[in-house]
Amino acid sequence: METTLASVGSNVPDFEMETYEPAHGDFGKVSLADIKKAGKWTVLVFYPADFTFVCPTELADLADQQEKLAALGAHVIAVSTDTKFAHMVWRNTEGLMKNVKYTLAADTTGAVSRLFGVYDSATGLALRGTFIINPEGKLVSSEVNFYNVGRDAGELVRKMEANVHLMANPSEACPAKWTPGSKT
Amino acid sequence: METTLASVGSNVPDFEMETYEPAHGDFGKVSLADIKKAGKWTVLVFYPADFTFVCPTELADLADQQEKLAALGAHVIAVSTDTKFAHMVWRNTEGLMKNVKYTLAADTTGAVSRLFGVYDSATGLALRGTFIINPEGKLVSSEVNFYNVGRDAGELVRKMEANVHLMANPSEACPAKWTPGSKT
Amino acid sequence: METTLASVGSNVPDFEMETYEPAHGDFGKVSLADIKKAGKWTVLVFYPADFTFVCPTELADLADQQEKLAALGAHVIAVSTDTKFAHMVWRNTEGLMKNVKYTLAADTTGAVSRLFGVYDSATGLALRGTFIINPEGKLVSSEVNFYNVGRDAGELVRKMEANVHLMANPSEACPAKWTPGSKT
Amino acid sequence: METTLASVGSNVPDFEMETYEPAHGDFGKVSLADIKKAGKWTVLVFYPADFTFVCPTELADLADQQEKLAALGAHVIAVSTDTKFAHMVWRNTEGLMKNVKYTLAADTTGAVSRLFGVYDSATGLALRGTFIINPEGKLVSSEVNFYNVGRDAGELVRKMEANVHLMANPSEACPAKWTPGSKT
Amino acid sequence: METTLASVGSNVPDFEMETYEPAHGDFGKVSLADIKKAGKWTVLVFYPADFTFVCPTELADLADQQEKLAALGAHVIAVSTDTKFAHMVWRNTEGLMKNVKYTLAADTTGAVSRLFGVYDSATGLALRGTFIINPEGKLVSSEVNFYNVGRDAGELVRKMEANVHLMANPSEACPAKWTPGSKT
Amino acid sequence: METTLASVGSNVPDFEMETYEPAHGDFGKVSLADIKKAGKWTVLVFYPADFTFVCPTELADLADQQEKLAALGAHVIAVSTDTKFAHMVWRNTEGLMKNVKYTLAADTTGAVSRLFGVYDSATGLALRGTFIINPEGKLVSSEVNFYNVGRDAGELVRKMEANVHLMANPSEACPAKWTPGSKT
Amino acid sequence: METTLASVGSNVPDFEMETYEPAHGDFGKVSLADIKKAGKWTVLVFYPADFTFVCPTELADLADQQEKLAALGAHVIAVSTDTKFAHMVWRNTEGLMKNVKYTLAADTTGAVSRLFGVYDSATGLALRGTFIINPEGKLVSSEVNFYNVGRDAGELVRKMEANVHLMANPSEACPAKWTPGSKT
Amino acid sequence: METTLASVGSNVPDFEMETYEPAHGDFGKVSLADIKKAGKWTVLVFYPADFTFVCPTELADLADQQEKLAALGAHVIAVSTDTKFAHMVWRNTEGLMKNVKYTLAADTTGAVSRLFGVYDSATGLALRGTFIINPEGKLVSSEVNFYNVGRDAGELVRKMEANVHLMANPSEACPAKWTPGSKT
Amino acid sequence: METTLASVGSNVPDFEMETYEPAHGDFGKVSLADIKKAGKWTVLVFYPADFTFVCPTELADLADQQEKLAALGAHVIAVSTDTKFAHMVWRNTEGLMKNVKYTLAADTTGAVSRLFGVYDSATGLALRGTFIINPEGKLVSSEVNFYNVGRDAGELVRKMEANVHLMANPSEACPAKWTPGSKT
Amino acid sequence: METTLASVGSNVPDFEMETYEPAHGDFGKVSLADIKKAGKWTVLVFYPADFTFVCPTELADLADQQEKLAALGAHVIAVSTDTKFAHMVWRNTEGLMKNVKYTLAADTTGAVSRLFGVYDSATGLALRGTFIINPEGKLVSSEVNFYNVGRDAGELVRKMEANVHLMANPSEACPAKWTPGSKT
Repeated sequence: METTLASVGSNVPDFEMETYEPAHGDFGKVSLADIKKAGKWTVLVFYPADFTFVCPTELADLADQQEKLAALGAHVIAVSTDTKFAHMVWRNTEGLMKNVKYTLAADTTGAVSRLFGVYDSATGLALRGTFIINPEGKLVSSEVNFYNVGRDAGELVRKMEANVHLMANPSEACPAKWTPGSKT
Repeated sequence: METTLASVGSNVPDFEMETYEPAHGDFGKVSLADIKKAGKWTVLVFYPADFTFVCPTELADLADQQEKLAALGAHVIAVSTDTKFAHMVWRNTEGLMKNVKYTLAADTTGAVSRLFGVYDSATGLALRGTFIINPEGKLVSSEVNFYNVGRDAGELVRKMEANVHLMANPSEACPAKWTPGSKT
Repeated sequence: METTLASVGSNVPDFEMETYEPAHGDFGKVSLADIKKAGKWTVLVFYPADFTFVCPTELADLADQQEKLAALGAHVIAVSTDTKFAHMVWRNTEGLMKNVKYTLAADTTGAVSRLFGVYDSATGLALRGTFIINPEGKLVSSEVNFYNVGRDAGELVRKMEANVHLMANPSEACPAKWTPGSKT
Repeated sequence: METTLASVGSNVPDFEMETYEPAHGDFGKVSLADIKKAGKWTVLVFYPADFTFVCPTELADLADQQEKLAALGAHVIAVSTDTKFAHMVWRNTEGLMKNVKYTLAADTTGAVSRLFGVYDSATGLALRGTFIINPEGKLVSSEVNFYNVGRDAGELVRKMEANVHLMANPSEACPAKWTPGSKT
Repeated sequence: METTLASVGSNVPDFEMETYEPAHGDFGKVSLADIKKAGKWTVLVFYPADFTFVCPTELADLADQQEKLAALGAHVIAVSTDTKFAHMVWRNTEGLMKNVKYTLAADTTGAVSRLFGVYDSATGLALRGTFIINPEGKLVSSEVNFYNVGRDAGELVRKMEANVHLMANPSEACPAKWTPGSKT
Repeated sequence: METTLASVGSNVPDFEMETYEPAHGDFGKVSLADIKKAGKWTVLVFYPADFTFVCPTELADLADQQEKLAALGAHVIAVSTDTKFAHMVWRNTEGLMKNVKYTLAADTTGAVSRLFGVYDSATGLALRGTFIINPEGKLVSSEVNFYNVGRDAGELVRKMEANVHLMANPSEACPAKWTPGSKT
Repeated sequence: METTLASVGSNVPDFEMETYEPAHGDFGKVSLADIKKAGKWTVLVFYPADFTFVCPTELADLADQQEKLAALGAHVIAVSTDTKFAHMVWRNTEGLMKNVKYTLAADTTGAVSRLFGVYDSATGLALRGTFIINPEGKLVSSEVNFYNVGRDAGELVRKMEANVHLMANPSEACPAKWTPGSKT
Repeated sequence: METTLASVGSNVPDFEMETYEPAHGDFGKVSLADIKKAGKWTVLVFYPADFTFVCPTELADLADQQEKLAALGAHVIAVSTDTKFAHMVWRNTEGLMKNVKYTLAADTTGAVSRLFGVYDSATGLALRGTFIINPEGKLVSSEVNFYNVGRDAGELVRKMEANVHLMANPSEACPAKWTPGSKT
Repeated sequence: METTLASVGSNVPDFEMETYEPAHGDFGKVSLADIKKAGKWTVLVFYPADFTFVCPTELADLADQQEKLAALGAHVIAVSTDTKFAHMVWRNTEGLMKNVKYTLAADTTGAVSRLFGVYDSATGLALRGTFIINPEGKLVSSEVNFYNVGRDAGELVRKMEANVHLMANPSEACPAKWTPGSKT
Repeated sequence: METTLASVGSNVPDFEMETYEPAHGDFGKVSLADIKKAGKWTVLVFYPADFTFVCPTELADLADQQEKLAALGAHVIAVSTDTKFAHMVWRNTEGLMKNVKYTLAADTTGAVSRLFGVYDSATGLALRGTFIINPEGKLVSSEVNFYNVGRDAGELVRKMEANVHLMANPSEACPAKWTPGSKT
């Protein structure tokens, strides 16, 4: 399947997914276009499958940071290829998930996973990937791990803070900050 | 240019670069094939250019962790599209670089940067990307940042530790560890 | 995606899926090749998604006929694009499913749904389709419904009986049975 | 021959056939466009050939249900690749066919059989297939059998009733009917 | 459909059809290869459809000449795209056909009609064409009429006689017979 | 050479040839377009070559019928690949040709012979073919013989009469004349 | 039609034509291969058509030189696209042709005219061209005229003499004869 | 190199060459377009190379006829692939060339030689060819010789005279002049 | 990579590079378009890499001639594939470079090196090439050496002088200056 | 015309040309293969045309250095697209050329000029280019000038000396000579 691949430094094509929204206990939809219109950052956290043991730990860890990320202007979306029905049941029956308030999106066709290069065609599941898109729609950070090395939600907060700061103060970025004569 | 793109979970095609080896004060070569033959992990740290201000901070930070990474079996390689001559001069004249002992590789043709998707064709320089390849040659971790958000060398050590542990103990990985009946 | 489409009267290409086996409370695999090797008929019952209201009714109805179908030599497989994890949880938490003993297969890549022409590329889910494959691997019956008109498991048993009978007594089939002079 | 294949859930391209109309004892034409214009459902019943033994039984069985189907808004069409001349003679000389009042269509070019995937290119005859198209032209049900397992006209009536009901009451369909919280 | 077209003076590719054989009151098969093996000429008489008014007149007329044609070594085959079942019923119920003893072939796929260029793709029926193939398989005579101008079976006998004579006495053929000096 | 092939039942593309006109003892041109404009039928009689023995017999025979054919509205054209010069000399020196009054056309490029499928590319000569085109330009009759079986000009007159009659009385044609109920 | 074009200085592909041989009053065949085998030169004289006024003058003129050309080892062939039958009649009825003893070849398919670039596809006739092929099969001289400017057979004899001489004495040819120092 | 090839009877595409003009002792340019504009005939005489022994003989011979050719309206051009510089030196140092007044053209790119089919790609030189183009730009005569058989300039004059006459009196040309009845 | 290749005598496509300008101790940009707009000649001097031993000798030698070249209207640009950062450090730390005032350009993508055919794809470095472009943008001189044979900056000055002179006095150029009669 | 283009640093494909050899006053041939076999360097000096004013000055200048170049192992070849005949006459009549002893080659087809990128397709002449090929066949130096800036034969000698020296002492080349630590 010939899919465009999002790459760091380029704009991400629009995408849309059905969701379960734990905050309202209801189904919904989420799209990059809407988040950009709202002037927010998009944080995508891909994981392989609902109803597995290690994954909820990561998602619970992420729940602990969801307020800080929201304060930084981020719309956090956890994504797997499960349906919104499975998302709802898992969220509401798995104890570790009880504080999750961020969006749980259903990439049932795998289209969004393919867009970010984390679709595993052998299993139909997503690899563990974290992506940050700025309010203008540019992909500014990507991270993908093959094994479940435990994504550190605190580290994600730090990256968001740095990105927010650098977007507001571009002159501090490297190498632009550097001026002839100042060094050597 | 039609380049194969390395992807997480797949084997990385072999590559070779000329290097400056601060540990010996001499030039050399490095190849994935040789590192695999030595049974080691490959850690690639791409940065845009020698002789700039922010970059040496990251590389100095990495120098502080180079012994821990070596102990974990990692061959650390910092890569830019500068020549080995520029690498040598920068290493030996820039104070922040004085503890750097890891390999400084010259991707003068940009071939390796293209392989990992961090070549910026507009400038001919590499984006900031960190990649971990296991001793069998499989890419197990990728991270790319558009802005210089300050890569945390400590976090890199943590990822290496987790990867080394999970490779040795695959049954603890998610979702393989999970067994029917143990949860729900 | 260019997929071969199984058609009535032709042999079905081999396929394989991961499964949850309620009969053993464990995970497994199922393949057409193995069922053919066992000399059995394959009955595939596609449905859209786990954790929905109407669907379990159909599957419960099918559970009531599962012994008759087994007696006719049929290996019954219910298939959706959910994971085996979701299948297990649904089977074990949904009351209507408690008698289900047949295989629940996870077509997470959608490959098998595509093979039988029931993959809905807009949603990533399977349409309601029932297929009967004889022990030699030939597709002998197909039925697909767009709305949930309530598949009648009793009718499925009747079709299996007729197919089993006609395969054993081909001369009774139409038009082969008909001989010149006997009619008109 | 590259033919579009009608698929469940999609609109069926228009088609037209010459017919024998037992109700008027005369020849005619039938087209999907005309039936849609009349606001009716189209029910297509393909069979291999006129003047064979088993087939008239099915068609006689269908004749018994023709009034119920008409009452549900269905225009029933039995189709083979025989000519309208053969249809007329068969209808008027075969005792089992004497109650048949529905349209007998002549797919002499095989075009309509190919459209529904039931044309057997080895023999030039149609496989046994039953198809229901709703008044908007969408294919909502397909059923094809390789052997003559005896299509049950009563079952066809049941499906028509369900389809008519669900088209009028879409909210009762699965999974749309299902609402968060109502179940689990 | 890319079909080879038989042309006068060239060898005809082999073909095979199912038949009704009035001489034995049974079904059978006929192939060009078998007729050639028997050392006979093949005479193909295409007509549009069974159960029509004008056509049986032609076929009855042909029946009157069937013995003469047989004596000349010809295997006569009347061909339409109807089935062998329709052929049998027509032969046995239509009074004008009662003396027909030659083969009635069922070109249900239209392949043979296409081979001789008489398949009308708009109706799926054959045009009125008469073809003579010599025992070596070469097409020596073709005649096609759009309207039913009444093929004269006596004329067909005359052509067969001439062909048989000229094949046995090639030196009498024009222009080979003609020798320099004999004329002008 | 990719040439359109005229086929029975279809319109014939326009063509033009140089001619010798025995009626006026002069050269001329003939085209299908002109004959159609004159409201006449076109009768084409192809033969291999001027100055041969058997051929003039056929053409003399045709001369005996030329008045009847003219009365039926036919423009008769005898065609070979010889030049108009050869046609004139042959007509005026060969005794058997002395009554010929119809057009003798020179298909020197072979284009018209190719159009009707009678060009023999091995010899550059035309096969013996007779074609009737109605005043609207549709090919209604074709006849081609490999050997010189002696075309019967009387039979050609009969065919012309039948075609003229059927074109004027289309309802008598088969199968259109046949009406339901009138037969069986 | 993609035909190889013979060019001066290159070998001519083999060709064969049917002929009328005035010397024996009989038909025959001529081929380049046979003439080469006989160690002779081939002289081809193309003309448009038999039975025309100016052409026989040229051919009569050529007849006057036919013995000289034969003495030089040339096999002279006059070629038009007429048949051998027309050639014979023309030779034997036209007074100007009565001394013609050389071969009259029938290029009825136009293949040889195309090979030498003198086929006029608008008329199917050959342009006036004269060609000399040496005993090894190389085309050594070509001459083509659009109008009938009167080819001078005496000039043809002169060219043949020169060619025969130069082939036997290649060192006298220009520029090979010329040696450094001999001139300037 | 795909070059258009001029052919007898067709218009010649325009061409232009640099020249040495012996008549004025200066350099210049010549083009077909200019000669046509002047209402003149173009006579092209190709030869292999300047400064060789045999060639000047031919060119001296041509010089003897240059006035007659001019009187007939011909612009004579001798062409080789040498430069205009070599042409000037040769013309002014070679005694045999001293009467040459016609144009000496430099086909240094070989384009004009290719157009007339006389470019020898093995040596980069032109074969001996003579071509006559009428004032309308149509090629009416071509002659090419492989060996230096001594082109006869007198013969060229005769051809020019005949062409000029026939162009002015087209009705005398063969076969147009010939009228039915006048001959046979 | 399909790149246009600049060739002597043709216009050079526009190009742009980032630079270090020793004259101002600052970074900048240089483009062919800007130099042309300023009415100046462009002199490009490619060299393999900064921080090597032999190269600075050449560049120091060039520095000695930079004023003469400027006086001739030349904008001198030394080019390697190093960054502007490396250029600045090298210029300011290497003693041999201390008089360099001309532009040091960074062809980091290799695009300009490819345009002039001096990009070595095996090493990503530029070969030693010197190119002169006139104020109209035409490449008038190219010189490339594989080994470091020591480019002579004095010779470059001489070439510039000659080019400037000939551009101003085109009639002195060879062969234009040469006139018929003046020589031989 | 798709020609391989020789490039500095790569091997030159073999080529061969006819020559005039002033040293022996005779014609000959020269090929790269033969010069390589003789262990010599090849020096190619292209110029536009014989018999022009400025060019002989350059060639006379080259004649003054021919002995030094021969002593360095170089086979010097001056090349234009003139014939060997023109070369001989020019050499022997032009006073400035009287000391020329090196090979004068005739690139009459332009093939060698195209190989070195100095063929001007508009004029068919060669640009002024000088090329040095080492005894192994690698092109080590190229220089092309659009205007006749006066190639300095002394500079050519200097380049040859440097190339000969560096080929014998590769370690002195830049940047190979440079060793880590020796500089900075």
